[in-house]
Amino acid sequence: MMNEQLPYFYDTAVEWTNARQGTLSAPELPSFTVAAPPEFKGQAGLWTPEHLYVASVNTCFMTTFLAIAELSKLEFVSFRCAAQGKLEKAEAHSFKITEIVLQPKLVIRHAHDLERAGRILEKAEANCLISNSINTVVKLEPEISAA
Amino acid sequence: MMNEQLPYFYDTAVEWTNARQGTLSAPELPSFTVAAPPEFKGQAGLWTPEHLYVASVNTCFMTTFLAIAELSKLEFVSFRCAAQGKLEKAEAHSFKITEIVLQPKLVIRHAHDLERAGRILEKAEANCLISNSINTVVKLEPEISAA
Repeated sequence: MMNEQLPYFYDTAVEWTNARQGTLSAPELPSFTVAAPPEFKGQAGLWTPEHLYVASVNTCFMTTFLAIAELSKLEFVSFRCAAQGKLEKAEAHSFKITEIVLQPKLVIRHAHDLERAGRILEKAEANCLISNSINTVVKLEPEISAA
Repeated sequence: MMNEQLPYFYDTAVEWTNARQGTLSAPELPSFTVAAPPEFKGQAGLWTPEHLYVASVNTCFMTTFLAIAELSKLEFVSFRCAAQGKLEKAEAHSFKITEIVLQPKLVIRHAHDLERAGRILEKAEANCLISNSINTVVKLEPEISAA
């Protein structure tokens, strides 16, 4: 049913304000200030393209995990995930985010689900639609415990 | 000088709160709530992985433009850019953001810079480090005018 409406579209807008920064907006979503990172002459303390990119992979991994966990009836107590993106020069003079490391910490309800929870996290990474859309290598380093 | 410090790292964290949503954070940056989009059972009105992904390309295009415009001494009055991402099924059962259309509206100071400004926008798209990191096709549809 859901797929009959495909494709879906996602709109954003950015408006330059000053220096290396601007305002990011999207219809019906709260706006916020964005900037180049300090290493590219931006002001510190603001969301950057690089952070937004790593965040898109991280949040897609979480929402995909939540969907698969629900389908699989996996009972869990908490989920958090750290994600680190690595920016370096790839081919001649071309900057690229070459790698993102995902470090989910999942606390499940029942110890007997430990192995299954590991497979569900792997499946979430493999099915993340943002991961499907990128060249960056995504590495998964899970930590699972029982409550 | 800048490159001697490579690679650079960008950290984010996401923590599940309830339903299909959570809190997105990054060191020294303001946190905000994220969710799956409504078409994937999330709550409307919140930033989604899909919006963050499109935003990362859009803001990277802007900051790259700002850097190249400065280097090229291009005088401009305003810059804004709309970006739309298209989500569809690509290979068998696999969702993907297949395309992002960038529609920058640039107002330059001097009419004689019109052609050069077009080249600078194209160069900004080609040099955007997020575009370098993805499989999504990025299309540029610029609108340039003189103040």
